[in-house]
Amino acid sequence: MYSTNLTVPAPKIVDRQFKKPLLCGPGPCDVWPSVAEALTKPVLSPLCDELFNVLDDIRAGMKYLFQTQSNLVLAMSGSGHTGMEALISNLVAPKETMLIATRGIWDERAYEMAKRYGINAVTYRIPYNRSFSLKELETQLSKHRPAALFITHGDSSTGTVQKIEGLGELCHKYGTLLLVDTVVSLVAVPFFMDAWGVDGVYTSTQKALSGPAGISPVAFSVRAEEKINNRKHDPPFYFDIKLLAKQWNCYGNTRCYHHTLSPPLIWALRCCLQEVCKETLPKAWAKHAATTAYFHKRLQQMALEFLIPNPEDRLTTVTTVVLPKGYDYLEVVKYMIKKHNVLIFPGLGPTAGKSLRVGIMGVNSTIEVVDDVMNALTDALRALTKSSL
Amino acid sequence: MYSTNLTVPAPKIVDRQFKKPLLCGPGPCDVWPSVAEALTKPVLSPLCDELFNVLDDIRAGMKYLFQTQSNLVLAMSGSGHTGMEALISNLVAPKETMLIATRGIWDERAYEMAKRYGINAVTYRIPYNRSFSLKELETQLSKHRPAALFITHGDSSTGTVQKIEGLGELCHKYGTLLLVDTVVSLVAVPFFMDAWGVDGVYTSTQKALSGPAGISPVAFSVRAEEKINNRKHDPPFYFDIKLLAKQWNCYGNTRCYHHTLSPPLIWALRCCLQEVCKETLPKAWAKHAATTAYFHKRLQQMALEFLIPNPEDRLTTVTTVVLPKGYDYLEVVKYMIKKHNVLIFPGLGPTAGKSLRVGIMGVNSTIEVVDDVMNALTDALRALTKSSL
Repeated sequence: MYSTNLTVPAPKIVDRQFKKPLLCGPGPCDVWPSVAEALTKPVLSPLCDELFNVLDDIRAGMKYLFQTQSNLVLAMSGSGHTGMEALISNLVAPKETMLIATRGIWDERAYEMAKRYGINAVTYRIPYNRSFSLKELETQLSKHRPAALFITHGDSSTGTVQKIEGLGELCHKYGTLLLVDTVVSLVAVPFFMDAWGVDGVYTSTQKALSGPAGISPVAFSVRAEEKINNRKHDPPFYFDIKLLAKQWNCYGNTRCYHHTLSPPLIWALRCCLQEVCKETLPKAWAKHAATTAYFHKRLQQMALEFLIPNPEDRLTTVTTVVLPKGYDYLEVVKYMIKKHNVLIFPGLGPTAGKSLRVGIMGVNSTIEVVDDVMNALTDALRALTKSSL
Repeated sequence: MYSTNLTVPAPKIVDRQFKKPLLCGPGPCDVWPSVAEALTKPVLSPLCDELFNVLDDIRAGMKYLFQTQSNLVLAMSGSGHTGMEALISNLVAPKETMLIATRGIWDERAYEMAKRYGINAVTYRIPYNRSFSLKELETQLSKHRPAALFITHGDSSTGTVQKIEGLGELCHKYGTLLLVDTVVSLVAVPFFMDAWGVDGVYTSTQKALSGPAGISPVAFSVRAEEKINNRKHDPPFYFDIKLLAKQWNCYGNTRCYHHTLSPPLIWALRCCLQEVCKETLPKAWAKHAATTAYFHKRLQQMALEFLIPNPEDRLTTVTTVVLPKGYDYLEVVKYMIKKHNVLIFPGLGPTAGKSLRVGIMGVNSTIEVVDDVMNALTDALRALTKSSL
């Protein structure tokens, strides 16, 4: 009876051959084998107690990962960007100043977001190939006395790691909240939210946590919580931490509905947390450090150079590798995926055309994966030298 | 070396017994059996062509579901609320008037969102137990001449369906964009975006689409697209349709990165669209109508009453059922889940304490499921009459 009204016919959605490559870019990365089972666990309805039990599990696991005793720990239902946007829109009021320590593209994204909320976003930019000294950050803090400082712990566009220890104390001296992006560092690199005085932090699941993208854990200090509770402005509804805290039962006895959570992602995050809690953080940190040390040694044996000159500034998870003159970075990436089904990335933003970006993290932080990447890279450099240079 | 610094020990995250109930509330609902395989398909990286092929599949499938030839069709990475918030924040500028046709809690949520963007949100409220006449909507349109009218097609809190046909024409007469929530109606109830002059529409996956929650398809008319392209205000970064259109390659040759998409949800949505395209919309609509007719007949045989007096206002997917005096709605729901593992919902918002809400949709739109629900309900009414009344 209705079919005569159809103006758009049903498309034929046909399946294609697709062989997933070994994912050794800055992310998304490969996932724990146990994630497959977790993703297919039963749908959880808000009327099932089990949903709230799972949320409790996740909050306990995230407190461990962030190393915090804060109660205001939960996961945003979206990509890592929802974590970034939730921190900014909840913690910085329109017209307040937010200082953005800028060395890669994620800081630029934070700037782009902040502007949209009418925040006075101020960037302090350094060359892309190093991280910040606490001294230069203090100079900026004292100059701007911002409501918040935004900084990335690990920067996947440049392959740098930022020292956070000591920064919380400096920020608090100037009445500033410390907001940290740990998307590409958490689980792989030591991080201590409480001990380092971090006030707002977010991460993603598709990096060293080795889970599927689409859910973003966040945590707030008591200082940040007070600001949220006393704020005069309202963030977008979907990002409102006050309301989400009730859905996630952060303070007990408030199992409210805010939006419909995604059961596969909730189960998958819980699964990844189970894996990391079983492995323990100190072992995960040591494993990442050892695997990357091996990777870097192999790069040096090939006389390849690091884009980041100071070894202390180099990020454990993502390494930016400089090739000898004459190589086209994109061509190398394409060769490796085509001939070896190994996926690494070219540079991005400030590192575009200057380096490769190789991600060795999570379940791929193993000697075998490094060997696979090195074999593919060695072959690419040999083949492309011969053919196209 | 680091372990001495740990202040929060690893929690033991243990698995519990959990038997998923038959999900016959207003949602989330049960999923296609094929969704399990889809969820565990390979991770898709933005450097894999297959990611963009899958996005193309999804856009083609959604054009069919919405019945639109518009190019601006994509999916938000979040719950249905991201669809709602994207429509509002992209299409209505601060200080512009948005008229919200209010009969249930989703309209109230739209009001709550709109306020946060500084929009002049005006509600027009009718009793919860009916839908709007086009005549009364025209009176409001002519009175407020709003930039946009927000209305829900199916309202899961009241169990009502709204006639949309003819409304687009009325809206455009007053320079108003027509924004429609089809979360609990699409696939189950006929909907024709282009033919009905709808300018912005969103839906969810966890209702009649029978997929997992966490991704929200949206579509915009050419009229809406023009408004987006000429707007002076900026929505939140995560909701920015201008940028998302580039990520989703809506106009060809713009496979940009905006945020990291969730591979399991992308694959799952594609899978659900495959299923519906195979079944075809006319058959899906006819199936839902027939199953619900059977369900309603069985309710009438038990002399149970409908909360919505006019049969034409009753929503196919969610039925609000009034019990004889003396029954406690929550007690009935609890009994059915405990004794029969059948999950239906009590009333919500305006219907709290006034009705049950039973959802028969998607893969659960079958005679067998209706029989299971009716058996459980019959037993509950008998048992609770005897024991507690």
